[in-house]
Amino acid sequence: MTRTVLESRSKTVTIGFDEPFCVIGERINPTGRKKLAAELEAGDFSTVEKDTLEQVACGAMVLDVNAGVVYNSNPNPNETEPPLMRRMIELVQDLTDVPLCIDSSVPAALEAGLGIAQGRPLVNSVTGEEDRMEAILPLVKKYNVPVVAISNDDTGISEDPDVRFAVARKIVERAADHGIPAHDIVVDPLVMPVGAMASAGQQVFALVRRLREELGVNTTCGASNVSFGLPNRHGINAAFLPMAIGAGMTSAIMNPCRPVEMEAIRAANLLMNHDPNGGSWIGFSRILDAIATGTPFPEASRAASAAGGGRGGRRRRRG
Amino acid sequence: MTRTVLESRSKTVTIGFDEPFCVIGERINPTGRKKLAAELEAGDFSTVEKDTLEQVACGAMVLDVNAGVVYNSNPNPNETEPPLMRRMIELVQDLTDVPLCIDSSVPAALEAGLGIAQGRPLVNSVTGEEDRMEAILPLVKKYNVPVVAISNDDTGISEDPDVRFAVARKIVERAADHGIPAHDIVVDPLVMPVGAMASAGQQVFALVRRLREELGVNTTCGASNVSFGLPNRHGINAAFLPMAIGAGMTSAIMNPCRPVEMEAIRAANLLMNHDPNGGSWIGFSRILDAIATGTPFPEASRAASAAGGGRGGRRRRRG
Repeated sequence: MTRTVLESRSKTVTIGFDEPFCVIGERINPTGRKKLAAELEAGDFSTVEKDTLEQVACGAMVLDVNAGVVYNSNPNPNETEPPLMRRMIELVQDLTDVPLCIDSSVPAALEAGLGIAQGRPLVNSVTGEEDRMEAILPLVKKYNVPVVAISNDDTGISEDPDVRFAVARKIVERAADHGIPAHDIVVDPLVMPVGAMASAGQQVFALVRRLREELGVNTTCGASNVSFGLPNRHGINAAFLPMAIGAGMTSAIMNPCRPVEMEAIRAANLLMNHDPNGGSWIGFSRILDAIATGTPFPEASRAASAAGGGRGGRRRRRG
Repeated sequence: MTRTVLESRSKTVTIGFDEPFCVIGERINPTGRKKLAAELEAGDFSTVEKDTLEQVACGAMVLDVNAGVVYNSNPNPNETEPPLMRRMIELVQDLTDVPLCIDSSVPAALEAGLGIAQGRPLVNSVTGEEDRMEAILPLVKKYNVPVVAISNDDTGISEDPDVRFAVARKIVERAADHGIPAHDIVVDPLVMPVGAMASAGQQVFALVRRLREELGVNTTCGASNVSFGLPNRHGINAAFLPMAIGAGMTSAIMNPCRPVEMEAIRAANLLMNHDPNGGSWIGFSRILDAIATGTPFPEASRAASAAGGGRGGRRRRRG
């Protein structure tokens, strides 16, 4: 059974075929968040702190950290991202003890993050582009960490799932050349918006099955992409996630502060027999009850956690 | 591609691998509904009328009709069920024009229903029990209708999915001996409560794939069974249905008046590429918007339908 092991200074999270679905919190990322970008340039980390604590409270098992802000004072991310990544990771590690996912398109920022991150973080990401593979895979090998592999290459993102599968296989093979085992590759098969490509859902479900059966790799995705441009997106996401989990998807990079999607994942874990005695579901249902009376999700989660009801996820009940 | 064709006097509903999921409304059934049972004994059909209209408004594509009431005045269902079934089917057919599912354990009640039902109703059900097969399959052949096949037999309900698969195959083979084709058998693989059997979900998903690939049959289930005994059952059902649809389940006998489950099915149809141009999802999302402002689901559905917004399901937008 494929197991991708992530570690913080004291916690281990395993992404695996026989594990509860791994929720990677996506919110610590200034991309498309102008207010957060301006705060970071001004040295204000209050939103990062809030996003860290809320995501963990809501059930994120891993936190993605992206420092991809373009400063007004310096437009060169090769200069600005590495020190900002270091600073953000220090801060997040001070606040919480979940494993991290170091997210950047700047190799020097990835290396800065790898230098300061405790334990065994996930690197996000390598693609099938030649220059990316040759820049990122040596880093992945040097630090002995797992990596997200996105299935596009120098020809772009193919709409043909067979091409995306071939790109994933190329990355897995190239990683093997660098001495990186398949169980340390987490493939993102790329989720297209179903509103733009009607076969997008079926493509992903079929790809996840093939990636698992033929390459033996774990998988992840930017789950909310599937509903882009359509009304009532949470309803689509909340059906997509269980369907992807049923097809064998083992993680997603997503907003864990949305109770509808988190409920769908908890229920899918239960239905996949990844929730012994239903303990996680029963704990989460208390949180849902509190939300129904008007309590915000993070507060309801914290209260349940403090009461020992369990915010679910990794808790295993005995006896 | 397997297609099970149901008809009313003027409408056709196809259960099939390439069709939107078929929602069979379960509510016209006095089992476990003491008030309804008493009403029926007293000749009061107002609840049947209400359940008929509400279920169709909410998106039921087929209506199950069960007359299994035990009268206080006459405890013999062989005497009471056939005339009551006939009366209920007449009433439902007067009110709506969706195909029916004639549901009884009393062969004479099934035959009474088959004698009065217009079009091509679904018979619910035959099991793998010898006496049931020999009583029901000749009726199914005589009226040239499809039948639900429940995968238990004279040894009871097996917890072993391989045994349940073997029972389903036995029924399909026996039906063939009677001249009934596999595409007119809709197998219910039996959904166990996941709270009592942790592997219940995975069993069903695996069974549905096998039934589809090895026997080429459509499938159905009593979907809400999966969440029996657990809190926040709708959340479990709303993850189970998309997962079952992703595995290849093509229909369910369920309460269509629950918006959470119906939203999950609409989203799953979209993600399975069974909702051309997303027309059904977009129509349903207007209903969800109305529900969010406090409008009950049946009224919101009727208003959307009257406004031409489509209550979804079978509507196909052109151009």
